[in-house]
Amino acid sequence: MAVTKAQTRPSLDQMVELGQQLRVDAVRCSAAAGSGHPTSSMSAADLMAVLLARYLRYDVTDPDDPYNDHLVFSKGHASPLLYAMLRAAGAISTEELMTYRRLGSRLEGHPTPRLPWVDVATGSLGQGLPLSVGMALTGAQLDRLPYRTWVLCGDSELAEGSMWEAFEHAGVAGLDHLTAIVDVNRLGQRGPTRHQWDLDAYARRMAAFGWRVIEVDGHDIADIDRAFAQAVSTSGRPQVILARTRKGQGVAGVEDQEGLHGKPLSDPDEAVRQLGGVRDMTVPVQTPDRAGTPHRFPSGPLTLPTYQVGEKEATRTAFGRALAALGDARGDVVVLDGEVADSTRTEFFAGTHPDRFFECYIAEQQMVAAAVGMQARGWAPFAATFAAFWTRAFDFVRMAAISRANLRLCGSHAGVSIGQDGPSQMGLEDLAVFRAVHGSTVLYPCDANQTAALVAAMADQAGISYLRTTRGGTPVIYPPGERFPIGGSRTLRHSTGDRVTILAAGVTVHQAIAAADRLAADGIPARVIDAYSVKPIDADAVRTAARETGHLVTVEDHWPEGGLGDAVLDVFADGGEPSPRVRKLAVREMPASATPDEQLRAAGIDADAIADAARALIGGTGPA
Amino acid sequence: MAVTKAQTRPSLDQMVELGQQLRVDAVRCSAAAGSGHPTSSMSAADLMAVLLARYLRYDVTDPDDPYNDHLVFSKGHASPLLYAMLRAAGAISTEELMTYRRLGSRLEGHPTPRLPWVDVATGSLGQGLPLSVGMALTGAQLDRLPYRTWVLCGDSELAEGSMWEAFEHAGVAGLDHLTAIVDVNRLGQRGPTRHQWDLDAYARRMAAFGWRVIEVDGHDIADIDRAFAQAVSTSGRPQVILARTRKGQGVAGVEDQEGLHGKPLSDPDEAVRQLGGVRDMTVPVQTPDRAGTPHRFPSGPLTLPTYQVGEKEATRTAFGRALAALGDARGDVVVLDGEVADSTRTEFFAGTHPDRFFECYIAEQQMVAAAVGMQARGWAPFAATFAAFWTRAFDFVRMAAISRANLRLCGSHAGVSIGQDGPSQMGLEDLAVFRAVHGSTVLYPCDANQTAALVAAMADQAGISYLRTTRGGTPVIYPPGERFPIGGSRTLRHSTGDRVTILAAGVTVHQAIAAADRLAADGIPARVIDAYSVKPIDADAVRTAARETGHLVTVEDHWPEGGLGDAVLDVFADGGEPSPRVRKLAVREMPASATPDEQLRAAGIDADAIADAARALIGGTGPA
Repeated sequence: MAVTKAQTRPSLDQMVELGQQLRVDAVRCSAAAGSGHPTSSMSAADLMAVLLARYLRYDVTDPDDPYNDHLVFSKGHASPLLYAMLRAAGAISTEELMTYRRLGSRLEGHPTPRLPWVDVATGSLGQGLPLSVGMALTGAQLDRLPYRTWVLCGDSELAEGSMWEAFEHAGVAGLDHLTAIVDVNRLGQRGPTRHQWDLDAYARRMAAFGWRVIEVDGHDIADIDRAFAQAVSTSGRPQVILARTRKGQGVAGVEDQEGLHGKPLSDPDEAVRQLGGVRDMTVPVQTPDRAGTPHRFPSGPLTLPTYQVGEKEATRTAFGRALAALGDARGDVVVLDGEVADSTRTEFFAGTHPDRFFECYIAEQQMVAAAVGMQARGWAPFAATFAAFWTRAFDFVRMAAISRANLRLCGSHAGVSIGQDGPSQMGLEDLAVFRAVHGSTVLYPCDANQTAALVAAMADQAGISYLRTTRGGTPVIYPPGERFPIGGSRTLRHSTGDRVTILAAGVTVHQAIAAADRLAADGIPARVIDAYSVKPIDADAVRTAARETGHLVTVEDHWPEGGLGDAVLDVFADGGEPSPRVRKLAVREMPASATPDEQLRAAGIDADAIADAARALIGGTGPA
Repeated sequence: MAVTKAQTRPSLDQMVELGQQLRVDAVRCSAAAGSGHPTSSMSAADLMAVLLARYLRYDVTDPDDPYNDHLVFSKGHASPLLYAMLRAAGAISTEELMTYRRLGSRLEGHPTPRLPWVDVATGSLGQGLPLSVGMALTGAQLDRLPYRTWVLCGDSELAEGSMWEAFEHAGVAGLDHLTAIVDVNRLGQRGPTRHQWDLDAYARRMAAFGWRVIEVDGHDIADIDRAFAQAVSTSGRPQVILARTRKGQGVAGVEDQEGLHGKPLSDPDEAVRQLGGVRDMTVPVQTPDRAGTPHRFPSGPLTLPTYQVGEKEATRTAFGRALAALGDARGDVVVLDGEVADSTRTEFFAGTHPDRFFECYIAEQQMVAAAVGMQARGWAPFAATFAAFWTRAFDFVRMAAISRANLRLCGSHAGVSIGQDGPSQMGLEDLAVFRAVHGSTVLYPCDANQTAALVAAMADQAGISYLRTTRGGTPVIYPPGERFPIGGSRTLRHSTGDRVTILAAGVTVHQAIAAADRLAADGIPARVIDAYSVKPIDADAVRTAARETGHLVTVEDHWPEGGLGDAVLDVFADGGEPSPRVRKLAVREMPASATPDEQLRAAGIDADAIADAARALIGGTGPA
């Protein structure tokens, strides 16, 4: 049976057939791969058949069409179903379908944007809905286009708190162009879910969060069609279609069975036979709604705030002011806050560009997800919270890298130097966390002018970039207008007779300068390098310093693992020249409350500790 | 006014006075500190006055009394209120109260267990309720004692998804000895909360999650008293007291004002005057309910499963079997699962010890929080999920270290070696994450017998310990019964003429052995070290290898940042001997789907890549 372009509304019978085709394709591509999740695909096949045939509005020949709807598989393991839909839509061939999970195939085990019809990577459960909220927010409040965002969720992932951050954000924002379809197949990976087929339990929760809830039999095509029709006619509220389904639906001995999660069917030929055999139906997907005009981003000259040398200013404040200036110059810059804008200083941007400022409240996972959704539509998001609280959203950052997302994140209140608030508020692992993100950039400025320059650089940086800022004021040491390229460094003290190099970043740069002064007073010339680009580190400067001074002291307001010291040591791990003598200074004991100066001293990362370490390293020259 | 021991039920008037005393103490200790959150304390003071005076059952002279209730400040920034309560209970002196936030004081900016009446550290919002759920679970299902868990929550933190993981877990578990008190003071840090004083919005959500909701005027002592009485008389459901309060209550010009979060009052003397002056009331806290018998942990000989050399077994399976054996030997071992027990293999423990197995579903934050709550009562929790998904709970792990918690975590499906599922399922940053936890232990076994030994070692290890396991089978290379001390390593190939050392762990150990065999065939003797203890690393073995072989190749199934390679390099960062020539092999490109062997090859961490790197490092000897 072929559905031609002329038939704009496939019949119920045709959708039944399409559902079976999607099942057959999920079964056979997983069988060919020898792995995958066919049973999790089969439960949602009827839901996706109706969506594809009658409700999705998408030009599959142009995935970048700004009017296209968006479809996210929050249950990313049901990728065989997604790929089967793409085949049914004529986007990929049968041959490509059968490359599923093979080396070099675009059809990965879980969807990623290597495939042009995929906006965001999924596969870590609980992320697709928050990402979709980001896209729907973008449609409603930034793009202002009528596209819809559809998201297929699993029932297991409703246990993830991030899903409820998303339900809350979307419900309060009234995102009526967002429809979640929950495939309640009762079975998680290990066994039954908490609520199994108690759809009312889910419905109560979602309704309480402000969503319109539509319960359906997920294998009754007419019932599903009615649910979608109700969803698209809803205004003022996001909708959830709660569908009671059976995992493995359509194949005897597989349906609603435990222990078959993530396993190809044992007898795929028999399964295909039971499902009525291979079909080659092509579905004419509805064309996008072309109401409204896609955004064009205005851009003008960037005038960064400047600071005079010797002034004292917190880098967090310089970040906030630079961000507001960037917002003046560029229409694509948007800012997201985790209810700490007064601390991170994104409040300045909020004041001047309220239409591009998004308050996410204390929901860091939804904040990152919203940013990922926005960048998928070409916006340039910055998001900020305390450095420590990025640990709350690390799985979302990790997945954003797999999404090839361009995100700019700022963490304020880094390190023990925040002072009295104590360790719960101190980012002491953020450099390690962000360095361990694929393709990331990690920046840590020490003064206000440098901060402003790095904020500007981040705006054009691909991938995940992270800026670490400091709570307290630090002296301005660089004149306005200097350049600080990503991957660079600045040498602040330098002589031909340098006997040791101190590598510092952020708050420890000022301690390093003071230490060098003390060492100079003892007749020990010391080089000081401001390694503001922690990743990529300025390997040339590090190597030159090693060669010329023979001794390196690294000093950071961070745990010893994964931060600046490790970045410096990594320079010597490429098989080239070995490292010179190195001493890494970092925070080694659990801090408590104390003043910032007391904290730096207690942690052994202040000027005295640096000078002592330098003296010891070069062999006891000068007073101990 | 003094309340004596004879008065077991302080009057309403006395509780009004106590509320004012708590406010005064919060104001004056914050004023003395020059920082802190008095206004956030003042809103909840009446609630805590009633709790302390009439409902909390606690022997303040013995914080370790197993019958004691537990009180958690989820809004940890209201620490002045907690410390004021401790003073009112006679636990700390006025002098100690006034040391708040000073260097060396136990009264940190946010509560930590340095103070014996504090079970768990808070201060990262959204954690206190999940931690309390852990304690209430422990009381109901492990300790089986009648103590209650009380938790003071903020309204801002209700935006965190982790709170809804907790509402869900507790609601379904019917934890009726758990009472949350939410201080709905309408104002977050930056400004108004999402729902401000719309208590019904919160009530709908919490009721939908199965909680009994009691709404009160949080400054009406009689109303509060009635609410607590209702709470303690509730069975089968956890309770939440939703209290409408005013931030800064009691001081004109401060009450319900934006912009005063986290700031001491500008005129503390006037504030104390308005609050009726300093009081020195001491409250006789109710004695604990001594029904039931505290748990005594049976313990017997541990018989670990054994494997014969040459067998092939996945280390994840060996982990699961060893854990079940540990459960047989020790009655204190409990296991928590994130709905992947069939993958992590905690299913074996679930089968043999269902009474000590906790299914947390896909809610990793609540899983860690529950484990922290259990260890606070002396149990020995192990929790497991995919290595990648620990990134979901990293803020909870970070805070667990501040709680001085003893947790044993296992991450399965580490690295590209998992194969076809793709990057969303690959733990490639877990070593970096767990190394950057204060006081942590990071273990990565390569065979089944080693895994079993390390599982046994973890049971007695303090702090956060992490075990990384592998999905696929690896050959058993160690005979049963060998010792693998934490901080040790094993040298697998060794000769006096070794020209290079290969340092590997887990899955790369087997690649390293194969590489050494190839190098030997080329006449290049290579040492192979199994660095199963990634933190602490065996520094002596690394230094000896450096000295004796002059060249090191590190190889890991992990991003280049923060893992095994960095652990090895760190050995040379103490100012002692510099490193020799080092080449770090790690995963540098974003993987996709492929077979495990294809993945190792594509990442450049297989035997061929190791042998090539070793040849290049020692200067091109042997075929390139």
